[in-house]
Amino acid sequence: MGRATDRRGVLRVDLDAAATGRTSVRRQDSLAVEEPLEIRVGPPGPGRRRPLAVTMRTPGDDLDLAIGFLLTEGLVRSADDVHTAQLCAGAETPNTYNVVDVVLSPGVPEPAADPTRNFHTTSACGVCGKASIDAVRTRSLFAVGDDPLTVPAAVLVELPQRLRAAQRGFDRTGGLHAAGLFTADGELVVLREDVGRHNAVDKVVGWAVRERRLPLAGHVLLVSGRASFELTQKAWMAGVPLLAAVSAPSTLAAELAEEAGLTLVGFLRDRAMNVYAHPRRVTT
Amino acid sequence: MGRATDRRGVLRVDLDAAATGRTSVRRQDSLAVEEPLEIRVGPPGPGRRRPLAVTMRTPGDDLDLAIGFLLTEGLVRSADDVHTAQLCAGAETPNTYNVVDVVLSPGVPEPAADPTRNFHTTSACGVCGKASIDAVRTRSLFAVGDDPLTVPAAVLVELPQRLRAAQRGFDRTGGLHAAGLFTADGELVVLREDVGRHNAVDKVVGWAVRERRLPLAGHVLLVSGRASFELTQKAWMAGVPLLAAVSAPSTLAAELAEEAGLTLVGFLRDRAMNVYAHPRRVTT
Repeated sequence: MGRATDRRGVLRVDLDAAATGRTSVRRQDSLAVEEPLEIRVGPPGPGRRRPLAVTMRTPGDDLDLAIGFLLTEGLVRSADDVHTAQLCAGAETPNTYNVVDVVLSPGVPEPAADPTRNFHTTSACGVCGKASIDAVRTRSLFAVGDDPLTVPAAVLVELPQRLRAAQRGFDRTGGLHAAGLFTADGELVVLREDVGRHNAVDKVVGWAVRERRLPLAGHVLLVSGRASFELTQKAWMAGVPLLAAVSAPSTLAAELAEEAGLTLVGFLRDRAMNVYAHPRRVTT
Repeated sequence: MGRATDRRGVLRVDLDAAATGRTSVRRQDSLAVEEPLEIRVGPPGPGRRRPLAVTMRTPGDDLDLAIGFLLTEGLVRSADDVHTAQLCAGAETPNTYNVVDVVLSPGVPEPAADPTRNFHTTSACGVCGKASIDAVRTRSLFAVGDDPLTVPAAVLVELPQRLRAAQRGFDRTGGLHAAGLFTADGELVVLREDVGRHNAVDKVVGWAVRERRLPLAGHVLLVSGRASFELTQKAWMAGVPLLAAVSAPSTLAAELAEEAGLTLVGFLRDRAMNVYAHPRRVTT
């Protein structure tokens, strides 16, 4: 549990080191840990929980990941819909802590047993569970379009370095995505890392669910990579009015943000940015 | 079809441009197109094809994507297992060309109807379709461990710039992953781009299936981002003996490569690299 990074012997080859006579050298390197997490869901009572999803994730904050996944996929609406969530033994010996067991509160509908609604997710997968194109969209409970948040551009351009400074795992591995929740003043509220960028966002959202902070009105969500449709959808599901990405957005991310009333910022780097939807929230 | 990039009006904000009095300016920006692709599979005859997976992908090379996905997930073994594959109309009006219909050859088993085997995939998702942790591994037909390939480090360090030079979409959008197949001499055989790195690999593999080039013995597969478990598994399924990534690998990628006998290179940049498994194929 919580093994975000691990050491491994590697062969380092550096052609520019030939002058010193040691082109290749054996050394230890830190890697981002990737392991599967199975999310099981079921009703209260002695009944068996059913496997809902397997995600390839970096261990740590697994309960937040599971609950954030259920929230952003529209299966639970708040902490009240979750009776218990716990890491359980699974079938492995020794226990790998790679299974989370979620018991829904009484009256919360179970995920459909329809195979086309079965969820599978991996390290950067967020619209899993819909085997038809019409169904890739979930619907948010929150009207982020009405959120009066404004953030000075001068605050936004500071956020990537704050995220980066708080990322412990990236420094060691270069292989962990991050998602950070910030206030309108640029204060970091919570940061999560994962090999999968959508897992990092689910961990942030799951934390917010458990802290009863939803909707995340008035907040900025910053992701360390690109902004996909899936990440934009997750931000909307959590009621975030401004999603910022260090790298490029996709067309579908921009279109969904436009529809949702969500401000989408991309290429947030070097004291500059592009605003792809609803620029009214970025003040200069 | 084939719309890999699209234009969109954005607000460009550059705080360092304040000296010229224009901190923000409206302009057009090119974005990587992201759209869902539904892959339907069924037996020959008049029967209906069943939705198998929805992947968020960049349009283009969709038949290669579908066939590569089926191959790397172990559902087909060669071009002989595919009777026909075609873009079909789907339910949309106007036609969005977001559905691929694959008819399997007589005798090829259909994907299991078991819901825990249903496939869902998104822009960076490759081990979808297994709702239990034990099942995330597919088994390759190819023993890449026996592949006698060796590649000079001096050849490997040239590959990222060759990949980059051939990437048309990235220059415009900054938002497209690439996968390139190279010979042992460093000659680019085929390159594919996609918002999803695993889609880019599936497009390369699907091309190789249709060209009857499997197993990809003696070849190097280079990916523009990180090396995950999923990408390593796809390389193995296609019989690639050397997978190189410009960025970091995960622990599970290194472990799978070790087990498969596959050489895994990471951080291939600046005339240097780390070799995480089976370094015998990298000569200095």
